[in-house]
Amino acid sequence: MIEDKSQSKTNLSELGEFGLIRHLTEHFKITQDSTRKGVGDDAAVIDHASLKTLVTTDLLIEGIHFNLTYMPLKHLGYKAVMVNLSDVYAMNAEATQITVSIAVSNRFPLEALEELYAGIQLACDTYQIDLVGGDTSSSKTGLILSVTALGTSAEKDIVYRDGAKENDLLVVSGDLGAAYLGLQVLERERQVFDVNPNQQPDLDQYTYLIERQLKPEARKDVSKLLKDLKIKPTSMIDISDGLSSEVIHLCKSSALGCNVYEDKLPLDPQVISTSEEFNMDSTVVALNGGEDYELLFTISQNDFNKVKGNPNFSIIGHMTPENEGIHLVTRANQKMELTAQGWDAMLKNDA
Amino acid sequence: MIEDKSQSKTNLSELGEFGLIRHLTEHFKITQDSTRKGVGDDAAVIDHASLKTLVTTDLLIEGIHFNLTYMPLKHLGYKAVMVNLSDVYAMNAEATQITVSIAVSNRFPLEALEELYAGIQLACDTYQIDLVGGDTSSSKTGLILSVTALGTSAEKDIVYRDGAKENDLLVVSGDLGAAYLGLQVLERERQVFDVNPNQQPDLDQYTYLIERQLKPEARKDVSKLLKDLKIKPTSMIDISDGLSSEVIHLCKSSALGCNVYEDKLPLDPQVISTSEEFNMDSTVVALNGGEDYELLFTISQNDFNKVKGNPNFSIIGHMTPENEGIHLVTRANQKMELTAQGWDAMLKNDA
Repeated sequence: MIEDKSQSKTNLSELGEFGLIRHLTEHFKITQDSTRKGVGDDAAVIDHASLKTLVTTDLLIEGIHFNLTYMPLKHLGYKAVMVNLSDVYAMNAEATQITVSIAVSNRFPLEALEELYAGIQLACDTYQIDLVGGDTSSSKTGLILSVTALGTSAEKDIVYRDGAKENDLLVVSGDLGAAYLGLQVLERERQVFDVNPNQQPDLDQYTYLIERQLKPEARKDVSKLLKDLKIKPTSMIDISDGLSSEVIHLCKSSALGCNVYEDKLPLDPQVISTSEEFNMDSTVVALNGGEDYELLFTISQNDFNKVKGNPNFSIIGHMTPENEGIHLVTRANQKMELTAQGWDAMLKNDA
Repeated sequence: MIEDKSQSKTNLSELGEFGLIRHLTEHFKITQDSTRKGVGDDAAVIDHASLKTLVTTDLLIEGIHFNLTYMPLKHLGYKAVMVNLSDVYAMNAEATQITVSIAVSNRFPLEALEELYAGIQLACDTYQIDLVGGDTSSSKTGLILSVTALGTSAEKDIVYRDGAKENDLLVVSGDLGAAYLGLQVLERERQVFDVNPNQQPDLDQYTYLIERQLKPEARKDVSKLLKDLKIKPTSMIDISDGLSSEVIHLCKSSALGCNVYEDKLPLDPQVISTSEEFNMDSTVVALNGGEDYELLFTISQNDFNKVKGNPNFSIIGHMTPENEGIHLVTRANQKMELTAQGWDAMLKNDA
């Protein structure tokens, strides 16, 4: 979070658009056999042969989706890739290629974009993804990032949102709410920094939360874990907007209701302690926090024994008939209707 | 260009993100056999079977790439699709699917986005393209559009930028410079309107120029025209930044030089008369105008007779050894080095 003001700054206009693209992408290697032509022509050429191609895209805007005060550019680049890979993994598919378009105002020197692309490259290297296209242009205000991911899968392996059945178990990977609390911690530190720039923050007790916010990992491993367990989920979605919102998506897509059990929600100890510190209800944090990039899926009751006790997965509820509604069953055994927050609230705040 | 201020306005927050996407996309039909899953899941699923998949993307930003003062939203939607299809056609491939992400500030009511999507839908209907994904979010300033297009082709038919050979003929479809002059006309009318809002502009003599600026058509037909003539271009690129810039791209990609003949440049009579009116050199307009979305390609000398006299195509030059450089040969038979303008100049102006 501490910037070295002495570093060199190269104005983007020295490179031009094509020079800039070349400069930023020349160290990206092609690792996928299916990439026939990457950056440098009108379009990339992909050969997925008899496999199905998957495509997903996200637009990330400074001041809306990220704040560069506490999001280092390298982390932003990494996260922008993760957000898209997560969507491909949520189809039970393999992610293979991305395109990245950026628009920047003149306050960004070349070195800033190099940082951004270093994060994108780290993500590509770690997840074996080929960068195959994109463009750069100027913006009037801040940084805009648009990432599109392609993936591939045999048709029989693809998992949609609409395949859940009555009585299916609702399962989530990892744990919930940490990314949201990480953002709260960073926001508080920024306010402290504004008041006293010399005070060094002690963030040791929040490391997991901050990492989940700044460097989320897309759950590439879940597809393999499930295959090893011989489970094909009946429906699946990734958790970007918060558990509640995604549970509602799955239910509506599959025309079902659902009971989610409060005492089954997987929470990291840092989530519990930090929720208390912020006077927040950790259940509300887990339900509405968002940006966890875990996978939420349904499986047949017959697969219960395969998942039970697996440290990667938590069974948090089960699907019910549509007319029974979508509920949280609290520790006190009360039923409360689940409601989604997130984007709507954000848009209203943007007025 | 005249807005009806009495029309109803629906605030976006009444719909929410998912309601908004559903509302804007529910009237889009799927027409491509290859679209297995479109809008509504984590990713779209495309089945191009044994064909290659092509992907290209563009990011369009208000105040940089378009000005809503003279670009009606419906036209903007149409053009945003064309810009991407043009890149697929420039690979000699068929465009099949798009994703569209938008970010808008609260000054845009629902009706404005409906206009935008009406243009996107018209483009999809006309070119038989399926909208298969995207997202919407808020922005702090104005409208941001990100479009990604997918296409398909047999491997043997794909034309890259780097296949031109010495002595190949340089050919361009349609005519050049009209879109740029259309923008100049619209900009002048805006200034007149600012001074006297009651004066109705008489734009009859500029109809072709304005249409080329506001409603460009991607050259889907060129691939078929060439196949009917039994020609496979050796290299191809679309003209988005201006002829000069694209000629330089082809030359650099193919490690060649080129002579372009001034007297061969195809100019519409409106381009000639309006260049004179604006005290501009029509050759400079044709070389640097940009946004023509015509296709520039090279063919073997052996194909000369197949193209000669074809009203769709103009032979404007020929490829030379790299060390001979990239030149315009003027009507006075002088050789001038071709230089690209466009983005670099724009970025500097953005300071």
